Amino acid sequence: MGEIDEFTGSPLVRPDFGREERKGMPEVILAESKSIEQAMSIAQHHLAENERAILSRVSPGLAARLRQMAGSEIELEWYEHARAAVLRRPAGRPKPTGGRVGLISAGTSDIPIAEEAMLMAREMGCEVYPVYDVGVAGLHRLFKPLEHLLTKVDVDVIIVAAGMDGALPSVVSGLVPVPVIGLPISVGYGLGGKGIAALYGMLQTCSPGLAVVNIDNGIGAGAIAGMIANRAARFRMVRED
Amino acid sequence: MGEIDEFTGSPLVRPDFGREERKGMPEVILAESKSIEQAMSIAQHHLAENERAILSRVSPGLAARLRQMAGSEIELEWYEHARAAVLRRPAGRPKPTGGRVGLISAGTSDIPIAEEAMLMAREMGCEVYPVYDVGVAGLHRLFKPLEHLLTKVDVDVIIVAAGMDGALPSVVSGLVPVPVIGLPISVGYGLGGKGIAALYGMLQTCSPGLAVVNIDNGIGAGAIAGMIANRAARFRMVRED
Amino acid sequence: MGEIDEFTGSPLVRPDFGREERKGMPEVILAESKSIEQAMSIAQHHLAENERAILSRVSPGLAARLRQMAGSEIELEWYEHARAAVLRRPAGRPKPTGGRVGLISAGTSDIPIAEEAMLMAREMGCEVYPVYDVGVAGLHRLFKPLEHLLTKVDVDVIIVAAGMDGALPSVVSGLVPVPVIGLPISVGYGLGGKGIAALYGMLQTCSPGLAVVNIDNGIGAGAIAGMIANRAARFRMVRED
Amino acid sequence: MGEIDEFTGSPLVRPDFGREERKGMPEVILAESKSIEQAMSIAQHHLAENERAILSRVSPGLAARLRQMAGSEIELEWYEHARAAVLRRPAGRPKPTGGRVGLISAGTSDIPIAEEAMLMAREMGCEVYPVYDVGVAGLHRLFKPLEHLLTKVDVDVIIVAAGMDGALPSVVSGLVPVPVIGLPISVGYGLGGKGIAALYGMLQTCSPGLAVVNIDNGIGAGAIAGMIANRAARFRMVRED
Amino acid sequence: MGEIDEFTGSPLVRPDFGREERKGMPEVILAESKSIEQAMSIAQHHLAENERAILSRVSPGLAARLRQMAGSEIELEWYEHARAAVLRRPAGRPKPTGGRVGLISAGTSDIPIAEEAMLMAREMGCEVYPVYDVGVAGLHRLFKPLEHLLTKVDVDVIIVAAGMDGALPSVVSGLVPVPVIGLPISVGYGLGGKGIAALYGMLQTCSPGLAVVNIDNGIGAGAIAGMIANRAARFRMVRED
Amino acid sequence: MGEIDEFTGSPLVRPDFGREERKGMPEVILAESKSIEQAMSIAQHHLAENERAILSRVSPGLAARLRQMAGSEIELEWYEHARAAVLRRPAGRPKPTGGRVGLISAGTSDIPIAEEAMLMAREMGCEVYPVYDVGVAGLHRLFKPLEHLLTKVDVDVIIVAAGMDGALPSVVSGLVPVPVIGLPISVGYGLGGKGIAALYGMLQTCSPGLAVVNIDNGIGAGAIAGMIANRAARFRMVRED
Amino acid sequence: MGEIDEFTGSPLVRPDFGREERKGMPEVILAESKSIEQAMSIAQHHLAENERAILSRVSPGLAARLRQMAGSEIELEWYEHARAAVLRRPAGRPKPTGGRVGLISAGTSDIPIAEEAMLMAREMGCEVYPVYDVGVAGLHRLFKPLEHLLTKVDVDVIIVAAGMDGALPSVVSGLVPVPVIGLPISVGYGLGGKGIAALYGMLQTCSPGLAVVNIDNGIGAGAIAGMIANRAARFRMVRED
Amino acid sequence: MGEIDEFTGSPLVRPDFGREERKGMPEVILAESKSIEQAMSIAQHHLAENERAILSRVSPGLAARLRQMAGSEIELEWYEHARAAVLRRPAGRPKPTGGRVGLISAGTSDIPIAEEAMLMAREMGCEVYPVYDVGVAGLHRLFKPLEHLLTKVDVDVIIVAAGMDGALPSVVSGLVPVPVIGLPISVGYGLGGKGIAALYGMLQTCSPGLAVVNIDNGIGAGAIAGMIANRAARFRMVRED
Repeated sequence: MGEIDEFTGSPLVRPDFGREERKGMPEVILAESKSIEQAMSIAQHHLAENERAILSRVSPGLAARLRQMAGSEIELEWYEHARAAVLRRPAGRPKPTGGRVGLISAGTSDIPIAEEAMLMAREMGCEVYPVYDVGVAGLHRLFKPLEHLLTKVDVDVIIVAAGMDGALPSVVSGLVPVPVIGLPISVGYGLGGKGIAALYGMLQTCSPGLAVVNIDNGIGAGAIAGMIANRAARFRMVRED
Repeated sequence: MGEIDEFTGSPLVRPDFGREERKGMPEVILAESKSIEQAMSIAQHHLAENERAILSRVSPGLAARLRQMAGSEIELEWYEHARAAVLRRPAGRPKPTGGRVGLISAGTSDIPIAEEAMLMAREMGCEVYPVYDVGVAGLHRLFKPLEHLLTKVDVDVIIVAAGMDGALPSVVSGLVPVPVIGLPISVGYGLGGKGIAALYGMLQTCSPGLAVVNIDNGIGAGAIAGMIANRAARFRMVRED
Repeated sequence: MGEIDEFTGSPLVRPDFGREERKGMPEVILAESKSIEQAMSIAQHHLAENERAILSRVSPGLAARLRQMAGSEIELEWYEHARAAVLRRPAGRPKPTGGRVGLISAGTSDIPIAEEAMLMAREMGCEVYPVYDVGVAGLHRLFKPLEHLLTKVDVDVIIVAAGMDGALPSVVSGLVPVPVIGLPISVGYGLGGKGIAALYGMLQTCSPGLAVVNIDNGIGAGAIAGMIANRAARFRMVRED
Repeated sequence: MGEIDEFTGSPLVRPDFGREERKGMPEVILAESKSIEQAMSIAQHHLAENERAILSRVSPGLAARLRQMAGSEIELEWYEHARAAVLRRPAGRPKPTGGRVGLISAGTSDIPIAEEAMLMAREMGCEVYPVYDVGVAGLHRLFKPLEHLLTKVDVDVIIVAAGMDGALPSVVSGLVPVPVIGLPISVGYGLGGKGIAALYGMLQTCSPGLAVVNIDNGIGAGAIAGMIANRAARFRMVRED
Repeated sequence: MGEIDEFTGSPLVRPDFGREERKGMPEVILAESKSIEQAMSIAQHHLAENERAILSRVSPGLAARLRQMAGSEIELEWYEHARAAVLRRPAGRPKPTGGRVGLISAGTSDIPIAEEAMLMAREMGCEVYPVYDVGVAGLHRLFKPLEHLLTKVDVDVIIVAAGMDGALPSVVSGLVPVPVIGLPISVGYGLGGKGIAALYGMLQTCSPGLAVVNIDNGIGAGAIAGMIANRAARFRMVRED
Repeated sequence: MGEIDEFTGSPLVRPDFGREERKGMPEVILAESKSIEQAMSIAQHHLAENERAILSRVSPGLAARLRQMAGSEIELEWYEHARAAVLRRPAGRPKPTGGRVGLISAGTSDIPIAEEAMLMAREMGCEVYPVYDVGVAGLHRLFKPLEHLLTKVDVDVIIVAAGMDGALPSVVSGLVPVPVIGLPISVGYGLGGKGIAALYGMLQTCSPGLAVVNIDNGIGAGAIAGMIANRAARFRMVRED
Repeated sequence: MGEIDEFTGSPLVRPDFGREERKGMPEVILAESKSIEQAMSIAQHHLAENERAILSRVSPGLAARLRQMAGSEIELEWYEHARAAVLRRPAGRPKPTGGRVGLISAGTSDIPIAEEAMLMAREMGCEVYPVYDVGVAGLHRLFKPLEHLLTKVDVDVIIVAAGMDGALPSVVSGLVPVPVIGLPISVGYGLGGKGIAALYGMLQTCSPGLAVVNIDNGIGAGAIAGMIANRAARFRMVRED
Repeated sequence: MGEIDEFTGSPLVRPDFGREERKGMPEVILAESKSIEQAMSIAQHHLAENERAILSRVSPGLAARLRQMAGSEIELEWYEHARAAVLRRPAGRPKPTGGRVGLISAGTSDIPIAEEAMLMAREMGCEVYPVYDVGVAGLHRLFKPLEHLLTKVDVDVIIVAAGMDGALPSVVSGLVPVPVIGLPISVGYGLGGKGIAALYGMLQTCSPGLAVVNIDNGIGAGAIAGMIANRAARFRMVRED
């Protein structure tokens, strides 16, 4: 991508360098709509500016290039299910905030997007506690891990990812005393498929205390959960000093 | 409603008298789209033909008229929540089939339509076992009555009525060894409201063994559940003789 | 509403008395789908059980009855725009949690639903800080009150209510370091009307840190914002002791 | 698919081994969203656990691998139209229940999904009686086979698969005294295409006694039909002893 | 309605007097969106111009006024089900064309709109042959009247009106050698209700030879059927001379 | 409407007094969602501030009150079809800009909304030239008035209002060398009714040079047309001096 | 495709040999969903049975095979735009009926589907008179060819194909005294794209005398137009004898 | 594409040579639905007729061919982001009109379509002033360039391109005294994705003075903006003489 419009000389990109400071969260490069060269160039730009570059929906070709780039100075963290990457220099490690994010997925197909949420919350300094594959078709699998999240970990917020009927977030929200973020996943076919039934069901929940992000918006779910957890942790940390 | 087209002399109504015998289920007069006089006239027609008339969505005015009609020979059964009525002569009582239908509703707003399903299954000769107000926002209320239905009653089929997120049928279907009929209810507002989210969620269920009828189609849910239960009861009855 | 099914003897309502303790939030009686007598009866039940009854979408007739009920022992708090009421005995006052909820509305038509959110968060013990009528068609009205919320009040979370184009939550989320809850409002006609465009726009936000509830779900927005604020306040309060 | 989350050490899959016993139906591996290696590994897992593995929507490459696996001890049953497979050891044969499932399809394009329903019902121990290609555009083809199903076979339930206008299930349901399961198929283009018109039409049926599953959900149609037939057969079998 | 814009002096209405001659069909005054005075005034205008005025969706108040207007010179023809009226002077009788239109309705709720179609075709000079209440839930009622239409009457075209599942037009089109016009009716509730499923099903028909008009467009169905029949009759009439 | 939130003391309304100057267009009070007292109070506020108050969708009761208010000092301009009103003092007359707006409607049902557009453009100082009732079902009525608009008046922009099939804006845009604003109207029933087909058709136009506003947004159509015409007129006026 | 179900021995295909005689129209083999071998086998079957085989949506590979098949005895007629083929022996030529079908397309993208309609009507024995590329963005191109169709050819029916705004069928229907069949085409992107706006607009037409088929259903448009024309021609032919 | 229908001898294409003169805008060849040979042939036709050919959505293969065609006499202007081309002879340069079009995009993904709008307005003789990548998630980037457009350039109209939440056009329209054309872009996934939320939001704008074109219709946005600017420039130019 050139950076100057050839017809008028206007700039094509206006970076928002103040964003991380203003919002407390990093930008994520959505790699799937860019060429390998574009993604590499933007990643290097982020590395130079922030000591860190985060890329989601990475193709195998780009993944290979990122692996070449990693080395003694630059560390590569690779999320296999999400196909997402974090490149960083030592100064690019997020400072632990003490925020605690629970992450529950209804089925194994939800894991790639759930992992995007985990990545985002971790890069905001939170600890993330995943519990995968506990769908409503066999609810007994849910109760024990959920109790662990609430009483042992004492999470600040829980993200619940679910596709198809999207019933799990309502069930969880009915049981817990912390905010729940519903993350609908684009699995399922036919009427209500591609996450539509899941999103509608979460919006229609009869369990107050649940808010949602859009279908497959793992980054967005991690971002708001990270903000919620970090808000709580800010005061907890101070107290614990 | 006149019975002959005045311009051409053709009949306006062609009754399907063979239906009850062919299908094993009575016709229900949907009163809400008819005048009181029309509904009364059709009801009398059914009484004369079948010793029984069933009316759904009855207005207060029509209800008053039906009450006047009841007396020594004609009995009136009134479903308050559904605002439905059965008028019958002694010969119009359905012969008990031994079919057993469980009926679960997620919230109190679902009761009027659930009661339509109860009425229909009862008029097909089944016994109906209702469990109301056990929504997913407090799942602990579900488990005990459900166990009762399965082990004490040994139901042949369960109808689960739910509006809003419509999550309960999937939860129930994941737990039981009998067919489940999902009955979406038109409660809820906003996106996915009026039963849409509930219907979509039931169609997208991850718990096989669940089939659905349309939103608010309580009569239809009772009809198929009655057929399922009566099929099982036919052989059970014979055996028990 | 009778409490026992007349045909089978089953209960019609299964109250969830453990909910307030389990979730930390009160139940709200949606009055619009009930008769005055039903609403009064349920309200008295809540008063007896919890020292408090909350009613939303109250008709003028019911409001008159509630006013009669208020007196020396029972206090009536009336939300004029939302047409919502809180009846309480002295013991029914929510214990202040120290949670701080910002509440921004885009236009004056959004105020009734925004007020529902205010009511819910206040009944969960939070302090609510409203800023009304700051739509995107004149953005200069937004900046000063927003800075006040962030630096003077130091809110834990901001609810942003908006109908029509629903652009305000994205604008606010781009500017603040706390979680934002988008509350779409059913104003607007034509394509995307009744809150659809607002909800879609919030789901499509390019400002991470925003989650949404359904159209006109003011109670739901207040509930999750209250939970977020109370989670933060729990640790702040302890620290400040 | 790895089985442990590399970041937190949590398990990625929580199998529901009690499901077959609880529900009386086997799990089906949806192969189309998995790599050949993943599908093979899960299939072997099922074979070890249940003496049987069922795979739907199998690619040619996977089919070749499955054929290699079959041999003296492991039998491969291949459904050509559905592209589905059953691998089993002798102990993995379903015990015949005596359940009888009729299966009618409106056109030849409906056969692949209809065959999924057949597979599922057969693996639940039912006998399945297919009647293919009897669409409403030439109704005379329907009557004779339907009479055979009803009087000679005496089926417990009929699945009717139809795409495009989806009119056949209503026609069949109007004629038979057993429950009908509508299975909409994603054929047809333009408005109402991809099975939408078929599903809507089945939900709007004027023939009570019909319930539906989602578009192309052959497994789901077979599952509920199998449960209905097995419920009836349970009592018939006992009687016939 | 005034006839001159008061601000600019421009005319508000530009009548299309050449239309009847150009198209061979009369205009119909849709009364439901007009005041009684407006409708009366337009009707008198039509009477003066064409010796005939046709009004559809007439309120009881307007009907009373029209009855007063009828007398020795002006005849009133009243369609009770459609609530439509034709006022005419002797010269306003349509000249019989010899066109023959079959008209089939699936249920009694379809009759009001079906009657609009009858009215329109009759006012275009056709003979109309109605067959009412022959829905697919009891197909045996269809065959005999249909054979009569085809062999005794030898109709030029058949209009088939149906709501809910809208299956009847496809069934009829599969059986007849003349063009079929599908007329979807806005009966039915829930998903696909208000005629949507019926319209989608007719568009998706697997029986070529069927074209459709919009939901409840009885006038439009009568208009195209009348044109088809009159085209055939033009040559038949000449031949028979 | 109170102007201070009673719970927090925050203002409820934040007027945007700079808007008329900033945008060159007046605000319009949408009266239909306000009580008569509220509308009167806001209107007086506008009169005091701007010497002019514009009210749309005025009820008969409010109209009566507005008529009482008019007198020697305050003039009332009443748009009968739109049911809209302008109250003004002599200083509140818009200064003629010389902008020229053509306004074409397809049918008489489109006139109320078209008149809203006329009102808005006139209050921005433009001259408006309406041509009503020239739908595509009789195109010959269009050509002569259109030629007049283009050659005699030399309009700067044309608004074309149309409901149902919404074909007229495309036809007009194909013929004229000035920008066209499509204004879809909510007439028509069935699929694509309430202005949906009209809006979709205008968005899909094959005649470049056409942009649209939302269904029934007459004020919006007048606003952008007024801006276009005034931009042209600004330079024309100067030139003509 | 095998012809016997391997599991049950039931037939997979039930040909409807009486259809051509019953309906007066040939079947068309939709080749795009079949393998080359399947399509060839079915085509040979039709050739043997009817002396003619018609294939639509033919791939280049299949086209090559069909060309090899043509020879001295079997003639191949190839429709380049539609990619459709007719194979026939001398006895397979349709007998001319004298039916006359006008065929108008709005743009060049509509030609492939329009050609399918032409093929179908010609194979039903009609003469087809195409007028292509006369969209509403330049209406002057329409009038002369239309007059030719009406006065010189004297067509019995006109098919009008249009995508995008779909305005042309309404314009044509407003001008002609014969039935018009609207054929919406799936061109256009964005909202209302893929033929949706075109179909909605035709359903909402303000020009009575227009009926529609589904998007891209060229075969269906040709079928009903052919039936209309043949009905008229039947009597004209007799007369002209 | 042949130019004569082989079956009937009718022409396939009816060019509208008067269009550029009638409307003041050139035609654009949408290359993506054409073969390279077809596109080249049509381009040469345009070059011969108008000294200029404009092609949008050009494939790499076609781009290579166009580059070969360029030379001493024929100049090639290439828009890299839009993948659009202008071929012209010296006489094909548009005469500068003095029209001034502002062009703002919310994100970098909007640039390809924004560039189509730029191309179109430039080919109509306007000067275009782009400001890219100023989305609402960091509004401070907007104010300075916007002030430049308004006060330094004094633009006649502003096009605002935005995908996802589509909030920017409303924000801009609230701030500027010139007409704004909203151009929704098909970026974004999940509910409201592919430009739907953006389009809905623009239609629902609370900032009058905004009209829209369809999703991704860059050519259409440039066309109407060019017409608006050229109308203003016509009088400005004259004045400045």
